[in-house]
Amino acid sequence: MNDDFYMSLAFNEAWKYQFLTYPNPAVGCLILDKNKQILSIAAHEKAGHAHAELNAISKALEKLNPHLKIPQNPNEAHEFICQNHRDLLKKGTAYVSLEPCAHQGKTPPCSKLFEALKFSEVIISVKDEHKLASGGAQFLKQAGLKVKMGVLENEGKALLKPFLKWQKSAFKLFKLALSLNGSPFGKEVSSSLSRAYAHEIRSKLDLLVIGGQTLRLDRPTLDARLAKENKAPNLCILSNSLKDYKNEQKPLSLDILSKFFDTQIPLFKVCDRQIYAGVPKEAKFIMYEGGAQFLREFAKEMDMFLIFSNSKFENAENAKLNLHLKPLFKGFLGEDTYGIYEL
Amino acid sequence: MNDDFYMSLAFNEAWKYQFLTYPNPAVGCLILDKNKQILSIAAHEKAGHAHAELNAISKALEKLNPHLKIPQNPNEAHEFICQNHRDLLKKGTAYVSLEPCAHQGKTPPCSKLFEALKFSEVIISVKDEHKLASGGAQFLKQAGLKVKMGVLENEGKALLKPFLKWQKSAFKLFKLALSLNGSPFGKEVSSSLSRAYAHEIRSKLDLLVIGGQTLRLDRPTLDARLAKENKAPNLCILSNSLKDYKNEQKPLSLDILSKFFDTQIPLFKVCDRQIYAGVPKEAKFIMYEGGAQFLREFAKEMDMFLIFSNSKFENAENAKLNLHLKPLFKGFLGEDTYGIYEL
Repeated sequence: MNDDFYMSLAFNEAWKYQFLTYPNPAVGCLILDKNKQILSIAAHEKAGHAHAELNAISKALEKLNPHLKIPQNPNEAHEFICQNHRDLLKKGTAYVSLEPCAHQGKTPPCSKLFEALKFSEVIISVKDEHKLASGGAQFLKQAGLKVKMGVLENEGKALLKPFLKWQKSAFKLFKLALSLNGSPFGKEVSSSLSRAYAHEIRSKLDLLVIGGQTLRLDRPTLDARLAKENKAPNLCILSNSLKDYKNEQKPLSLDILSKFFDTQIPLFKVCDRQIYAGVPKEAKFIMYEGGAQFLREFAKEMDMFLIFSNSKFENAENAKLNLHLKPLFKGFLGEDTYGIYEL
Repeated sequence: MNDDFYMSLAFNEAWKYQFLTYPNPAVGCLILDKNKQILSIAAHEKAGHAHAELNAISKALEKLNPHLKIPQNPNEAHEFICQNHRDLLKKGTAYVSLEPCAHQGKTPPCSKLFEALKFSEVIISVKDEHKLASGGAQFLKQAGLKVKMGVLENEGKALLKPFLKWQKSAFKLFKLALSLNGSPFGKEVSSSLSRAYAHEIRSKLDLLVIGGQTLRLDRPTLDARLAKENKAPNLCILSNSLKDYKNEQKPLSLDILSKFFDTQIPLFKVCDRQIYAGVPKEAKFIMYEGGAQFLREFAKEMDMFLIFSNSKFENAENAKLNLHLKPLFKGFLGEDTYGIYEL
């Protein structure tokens, strides 16, 4: 198979963790041994955790030597691998969706790992333009490795879009779950895997935005109970009744909320969240959740759309609007399909 | 990577040609060299053409020796490969979704090819229960190859469902193209790749079934002009106005049709098709095309559903009905997603 095939497998793995790596980029990595056997495919899964390269190298080494117990902590893993690799990945090839880092950040530089393990080639999709992290390709070339840059570059750049937006301002994502025939109103619209992914995203958000009407009618909890870390997101309630508080950048008190809403609504009982009437300036990763009306109102200002579709026709109205989206990625979660789109 | 990973890649390739192999089964094959490098992934594409195994072996040999010009004709290819393989695939591994054939049919037996090329292992998903073709695994074992059966067997069986139905009676497929919000009414609902796939299916059908109302309102051609072979399918028009002719198993004349339809409708101008008012008994592969009403009426008697979804919200009504489907395969065609479902 060719470079595009291997790089696509790395991309697919990276997209599975898209949004969950906030504020870091989604990155995927695939490792071939010296004979071009695929040893591993892995992604960066979470900020502060191992980079995609370290994850893929760990999985590859564990495949070749199942007795190897690589530490979880990225710094310890890096150190351990440098001491215990026994040339198992010598003359290997790595496919990485983003240029490997060359700097000591929270984790040691991945470029050094490829050098230490005597890889012969690193194939990269997109050059890292981040001043601190860049220089990996240069480092690898100087260390005598073959480096190829620009494989499926457009697809690689699509993967980085949320990260690049987070770097400069707020990134806004609209989430919607639909039946196969476009109805957002059915109960249990999405599979448990889709809901778990949505909850993982919620646990990473700076802010979740909903409409006042959703609150009154659906009485949601809007927590992240299906996520590994059940961190309920801070909320923004966009409601005409709260318009006097919209430009305040501080959270609303329960006293104020009780004037406009039944404070027995479950989401008010989640203590470790702040509730705003407008979008606070410091929020960088914001998700909007709502139905057709909410989508019609805010579609134009969204950076991306996350749309789950299940396998059911429902005898119910669809979300009616004109909105022609461009798919960046499509994947499967249980019996659902999901797409990540932009305008 | 493991057996499931490689077998899944073979399955994915096979699903791309699902329905197009009629009356043969959809089969996929992946080849690893002696060092476990993936050399090729291929499918059976069309009845009378090469089996998946022969296609995958040809691609693998051409990758290893780009000067090799393997003949198109399956019999000639088989002969040529046996004489010119130069042990290039010696100790290789093959993953096949269906037990390789052991009999001389229209093409020579694939099992013999694995033996002749000195493969060391053949990994199979589903045992072939067809009396004439079966025995491949037994043959391979006796020839000294390692054989493993039953990898991802349920998924492998799903792939064979249309074939197994064709063996005993008619297989009915419902095709529908929807916008992302479930509307079947938008113009250009599906991408050019989706339409090409639908036309390829049409060119293989024994019968295409439509409603009389579709004919009057949409004035379709219902040909297969986007297929490699533009063979317009025979038609069945289900219409109350034709009920007196429903049980006749012979085609309708233009004289009869002109009593009920404007015979200027484009599909009547396709000369090499027969038009029926009911389903002729000999039709084994039948596709229904229509909208929500047609789907509501015939859903219960369908074997499978092929549903294309594009990336657009349209300000239009959706197809309203209650129908909970089970996805067998989902894939991408350009900007569209498509699913193959059963009840």
